[in-house]
Amino acid sequence: MGVIVQKFGGTSVADIERIRNVAHRVAKAYDAGNDVVVILSAMAGVTDKLISMASRISERPEKRELDVLLATGEQTTAALLAMTLISMKYPARSLMGFQAEVRTDCAFGNARILDINAERIEALIGRRNIVVIAGFQGHDREGNITTLGRGGSDTSAVAIAAALKADVCEIYTDVDGVYTTDPNICGKARKISKIAYDEMLEMASLGAKVLQIRSVEFAKKYNVPIHVRSSFSEEEGTMVWSEECDMERLMVSGITCSKNDARILVKGVPDQPGIAARVLGPIAEAGIVVDMIIQSAPKNGTNDIAFTVPRTEYDAAMETARRVAEEVGAEGVHGDQSIAKISVVGIGMKSHSGVAAKMFSTLAAENINIRMISTSEIHISCVIMEKYAELAVRALHTAFGLDREA
Amino acid sequence: MGVIVQKFGGTSVADIERIRNVAHRVAKAYDAGNDVVVILSAMAGVTDKLISMASRISERPEKRELDVLLATGEQTTAALLAMTLISMKYPARSLMGFQAEVRTDCAFGNARILDINAERIEALIGRRNIVVIAGFQGHDREGNITTLGRGGSDTSAVAIAAALKADVCEIYTDVDGVYTTDPNICGKARKISKIAYDEMLEMASLGAKVLQIRSVEFAKKYNVPIHVRSSFSEEEGTMVWSEECDMERLMVSGITCSKNDARILVKGVPDQPGIAARVLGPIAEAGIVVDMIIQSAPKNGTNDIAFTVPRTEYDAAMETARRVAEEVGAEGVHGDQSIAKISVVGIGMKSHSGVAAKMFSTLAAENINIRMISTSEIHISCVIMEKYAELAVRALHTAFGLDREA
Repeated sequence: MGVIVQKFGGTSVADIERIRNVAHRVAKAYDAGNDVVVILSAMAGVTDKLISMASRISERPEKRELDVLLATGEQTTAALLAMTLISMKYPARSLMGFQAEVRTDCAFGNARILDINAERIEALIGRRNIVVIAGFQGHDREGNITTLGRGGSDTSAVAIAAALKADVCEIYTDVDGVYTTDPNICGKARKISKIAYDEMLEMASLGAKVLQIRSVEFAKKYNVPIHVRSSFSEEEGTMVWSEECDMERLMVSGITCSKNDARILVKGVPDQPGIAARVLGPIAEAGIVVDMIIQSAPKNGTNDIAFTVPRTEYDAAMETARRVAEEVGAEGVHGDQSIAKISVVGIGMKSHSGVAAKMFSTLAAENINIRMISTSEIHISCVIMEKYAELAVRALHTAFGLDREA
Repeated sequence: MGVIVQKFGGTSVADIERIRNVAHRVAKAYDAGNDVVVILSAMAGVTDKLISMASRISERPEKRELDVLLATGEQTTAALLAMTLISMKYPARSLMGFQAEVRTDCAFGNARILDINAERIEALIGRRNIVVIAGFQGHDREGNITTLGRGGSDTSAVAIAAALKADVCEIYTDVDGVYTTDPNICGKARKISKIAYDEMLEMASLGAKVLQIRSVEFAKKYNVPIHVRSSFSEEEGTMVWSEECDMERLMVSGITCSKNDARILVKGVPDQPGIAARVLGPIAEAGIVVDMIIQSAPKNGTNDIAFTVPRTEYDAAMETARRVAEEVGAEGVHGDQSIAKISVVGIGMKSHSGVAAKMFSTLAAENINIRMISTSEIHISCVIMEKYAELAVRALHTAFGLDREA
């Protein structure tokens, strides 16, 4: 018995029937004696529908008004779930972002939560109410409605769990947990039962899509245990929590694969001090986030500088790179959108040597050429040709002992 | 130049294209130098859709949550219109009920406006913003979302116009004004250019559906001139204002026809003091509103008591009436759902005699039997058989000189 925050995503509340299922699950936690606070997303597809409505008005709909429009999605599901619970004789009550006092900055469309005044929620659960809160939304200092950006309901849930010092924040979704890698790529992928915040952050930023990165950052900061699980089964999912909780662990927790990047190579750059900054500065000024950067050893007085950018920014980045190459007297610019970034992630790496060597030899054994490498304390990423991505994932998954037992 | 409140109904904002038309009309008023505040209904059909969604959850959806759900309708149109105006380079901003500080009581589903703190709206229009307010909604003392009941956006508009001391509250609808009678019944119906609040109140309560009664009461109380007009044409509509503004006037302003009532006759009630209360008391206790009541002169120690009730309450009223009839020893109960209530309305009646006589003789000339009569200072109503309703309306329209010149 304790305080449980349950968050249900769009597919879990996609229609009245599924909302009824959610109500039964909420009721079960409540009947077990817990105080229950529920955070909801909009029905699957609704947010996209609202955005497409707005885009018929303007190519770039004004952001404050777009937030007012989008906030109706979660308002609808929160009202419907509270109504369902009440029809089942449970004392439920919906709260919108402004009523739950989820205060954010005023960055419409991508607002950050500043603080939550949990008094009203606490008073309600203190009287044994089930509180149903519209996720994804808050209000700024002036009382404007704001939204938290894609996947923001996860962040709402974790932030509210933190404010309530909840025992757990359950994130119900359409998958039943976090996997060692994408099961669509590797049939032997295993569900991870426990994962540390830092690993989850790496997994998320390297391509796993289960949780919004910001929500994991929040959970880590306030030490909120997250339980990622399926709303369609009773099985345990994946616990995301602090490193210390986790005694035994493998060297590597998971393999991720991202096809969202493109690689740009500026060849034959004169080998002068500060040249990397002269090449990459204008890219940053154009608002393009560079991920990996490799500068080759100088040869005949010139260098090659390679870097990756989001594939969506490829055209803009190429244009800037070509201009810069001319200015600094480089030989030329090559671009490649057919790359994949494969990463192995694990806190265990900190205390195990040889992870990088094993990764490189595994890829070599499959005749996969490594184009770029980057590392951190708990991940190693390699850029390879896109066509080898799935093969690489499966080979690494086996090599690091992650395969599910048959 | 002044402060104009414009209210657009559901058909006027039924889709993106119509919202664009509304935006152009709003922009025109703004460009003429006026401060403009817009109140919107939900898109036509949306409120019914939301209600039917809720009714799939429960036959009687909990009222607080239903209001949260319904409020999304106006939130959507307000955001879309503000977005459209902004895309046209006008400085617009939407406000929900709670942001516009429309404070109501906590009668969910049928809340009454208690007060409006117009400071925020005034500050915005003071900086030449166009303010777009979600109609139909407010918030109670505890910050709960409330709605004002069917047609509540009219009341929102008039109340906000009153709070702003606006020069006029324009109600845009799908008809181009208030008519002397229903043009669908009488081809010679004329648009009324000016009508007093009291007449409009009678017209509305006797069956004309152009304005919500409560909004006219509000307008009368705070002396807000209402201009009822079409959102699809530029023509002047009908001004609803105080009696004093109106110099010339006809004896009768309009003819209304209502088919929403049923008549119940309790025959042979013993002629005792207090017998009417004994018959009608239980009807009132059952929550049924009785409109007209006629008690016949006693004959052989018994009376007949006839009364009308809303047709929707007919079955419940008959059941109660039968029970009461037995208790008081009446002879029997007859019910009739095929009645119509025809009324002539006009402030001019106050100073003209002979209106009743003319009404009765007109109906008699058409061989229409009058079953019940009720009168006030400014209206006379007759209950007749439903099948004569249209004939009666046309005959009275001609008799009182209301016919449009051919």
